[in-house]
Amino acid sequence: MALTPDFDTYPDDVTVTNARLAPRWVAVSWSDGTLARFHHAWLRDNCPCAGCVHQVTKEQVFEFVGAPVDNPPSAAEAGDDGTLEVVWSVDGHHSSYDAGWLFAYRYDDGLGARPTEVPDDAPVVWDGSTEGVPATFDGPAVLADDEALLEWLLALRAYGLTRLRDVPTELDAVGRVAARIGIVRETNFGVLWDVRSEVAPVTNANTSFALPPHVDLAMREYQPGLQFLHCIENSTRGGQGTYLDGLRVADVLRAEQPDAFRVLTTVPWQFANRSPVSDYRWAVTPIVLDAAGNVTEVRVGNWLRAPLAVAFDDVEPAYAALRALFELTYRQDLAVRTSLEPGDVLAFDNRRILHGRDAFEPTSGRRFLRGCYGERDELASRIRILQRARREAQLPR
Amino acid sequence: MALTPDFDTYPDDVTVTNARLAPRWVAVSWSDGTLARFHHAWLRDNCPCAGCVHQVTKEQVFEFVGAPVDNPPSAAEAGDDGTLEVVWSVDGHHSSYDAGWLFAYRYDDGLGARPTEVPDDAPVVWDGSTEGVPATFDGPAVLADDEALLEWLLALRAYGLTRLRDVPTELDAVGRVAARIGIVRETNFGVLWDVRSEVAPVTNANTSFALPPHVDLAMREYQPGLQFLHCIENSTRGGQGTYLDGLRVADVLRAEQPDAFRVLTTVPWQFANRSPVSDYRWAVTPIVLDAAGNVTEVRVGNWLRAPLAVAFDDVEPAYAALRALFELTYRQDLAVRTSLEPGDVLAFDNRRILHGRDAFEPTSGRRFLRGCYGERDELASRIRILQRARREAQLPR
Repeated sequence: MALTPDFDTYPDDVTVTNARLAPRWVAVSWSDGTLARFHHAWLRDNCPCAGCVHQVTKEQVFEFVGAPVDNPPSAAEAGDDGTLEVVWSVDGHHSSYDAGWLFAYRYDDGLGARPTEVPDDAPVVWDGSTEGVPATFDGPAVLADDEALLEWLLALRAYGLTRLRDVPTELDAVGRVAARIGIVRETNFGVLWDVRSEVAPVTNANTSFALPPHVDLAMREYQPGLQFLHCIENSTRGGQGTYLDGLRVADVLRAEQPDAFRVLTTVPWQFANRSPVSDYRWAVTPIVLDAAGNVTEVRVGNWLRAPLAVAFDDVEPAYAALRALFELTYRQDLAVRTSLEPGDVLAFDNRRILHGRDAFEPTSGRRFLRGCYGERDELASRIRILQRARREAQLPR
Repeated sequence: MALTPDFDTYPDDVTVTNARLAPRWVAVSWSDGTLARFHHAWLRDNCPCAGCVHQVTKEQVFEFVGAPVDNPPSAAEAGDDGTLEVVWSVDGHHSSYDAGWLFAYRYDDGLGARPTEVPDDAPVVWDGSTEGVPATFDGPAVLADDEALLEWLLALRAYGLTRLRDVPTELDAVGRVAARIGIVRETNFGVLWDVRSEVAPVTNANTSFALPPHVDLAMREYQPGLQFLHCIENSTRGGQGTYLDGLRVADVLRAEQPDAFRVLTTVPWQFANRSPVSDYRWAVTPIVLDAAGNVTEVRVGNWLRAPLAVAFDDVEPAYAALRALFELTYRQDLAVRTSLEPGDVLAFDNRRILHGRDAFEPTSGRRFLRGCYGERDELASRIRILQRARREAQLPR
């Protein structure tokens, strides 16, 4: 098995059977019939040898910017143990590529015998008619067992909203749950924060008012990617929760009111949260698209807005579009409603899922939630590490 | 003075002198001759009264989505104490706007007697020919005094790169410096982390190798916005630092090689950093633009790249464009070079400033840096709070 430039284990069920050198690329055939071309620049940049990649950090040392611009291979062939072997013409450098690694990172679609896989991190978009939302998992199992942890995290990534049951109603428990994923994101509200009705609240969350569906901390440049809410006590009347999948809300808006969707993806709103000791502001569109036009972020937070500051003629369209979005967040067919029981931890993607609550009667009982934040790329990293461990455990000894 | 919807103090040198009600807006005149129109929807949404804004949290309670769509004012006029007074026709609600607040948030440009201000957070773009980079401040003063702190932070926001001198060479000092701004961002490298040559490094930073100009943690969805590097010991030969303003580098690229600039703002690279216990990856263009086409982020990190994964025909243009960018990062006329002395803290915008270092001779002496990360919006918040305090101190008693 050849060196690879990372810590992963790659399938050994394919070998390189043939390599053909062309003026701009190397065409590689694998034992399963897959064929893919790799450009010279890509191959040189990804040489995994000990001179090009530090073998302890697995970080690259080679800098292609210092290497010859025009350095085509002088030879490319299948190696004896199923690798791809390349020799570079200008400097005589020799590169050897693991067949499974090369297969996993091939980018020349449409030539292969295997269909391109559906990405395993594709979201499952849901609404009020979807069965089994929120997907529910056993808290103590998730805290103790990595296999249970992985199942929960895959659901959290797919649905953006999950529930754990029977998490100990201890003050540090929600932090321990979040730490199963990674680093807890500290904010101006602290590392762990409380949600209960207070006489001198620092935020409307700590009143007994209804909260319209929203994401937390929409006024941060880096809006936290994950939120955890742990119910420690809940004996008050009211306060039922409403949850919506922002991806579904955005889809509906795009289909039913394309003009509003366009305005919400192009005209920025000012978000803000001020206190005696902090003053966070950020200007961003309420719906954020990636370069491919996919919704990556939904920023909805009625009471986290500062005065709109856009061109005069954009003001009325911006209000009309935001009203259309807010109205969708009240549509019952899009929402899942549920109450929190002591021991529940609700974990959700805070840049995708909107959450709200009914008003509650503060004198009718006690209501005490503790929460914290995390990041989506910590979740992705933890899933990869757990999957890496699972693959390694399946290797023949 | 009327209520305002936040904790700020507004200038009292203007009063509202006239208000004229139009079918879609209210036209407001101030005592200095400024005239600005405000749409009905904007005014209703920004009513600061105790029924619309919680007076302790200063967060909005009013939801315009639940209010009548068509609710024009029945009256709008200048109040006796210089406010704007509006009565709403459908519900009879009464709104009173502070003249200074309304002036500060006017969005109807081109009608005013005062020119629109240059934003005070506009970056000062620099290169190797700019005098006084990095701007240098006294560390003990910044740690002890809020006025010195504000001067430093304004320079950090403007230039993206600053230096403090004479910070105590204590292990926790860099964390204390960062905490003058706000929350320290914990990452997989910890809260505070060390940079020195190690036998079993977790990253190339902890070798004695040269590091090409880069930003840290380019593989994070939320690349840290601020970086602090504290020199505790430095008696080795070599290791001099190179710093570039990514905004200047991007400007030069846009002017000299527009095709490369276009590719670098549209074709994403895969960034990655893997370890035995973490696996962070993120796909993003090396140069990120905001909706207005301004550069907001530069992601350069040669050894933090995973295999490029884009359409086959984009691979060669992507490599050519990245090579053009990397070549600019080695251009001496764009760079500032400086060595760190014990007690120096270099503080910079990690999403704007590229930093690199020469190789050093690990056996020629001792070299020990400690660093940590913060966020740009913590910086912005701290500046606003310090400026708020300064304004309040200037109020007549």
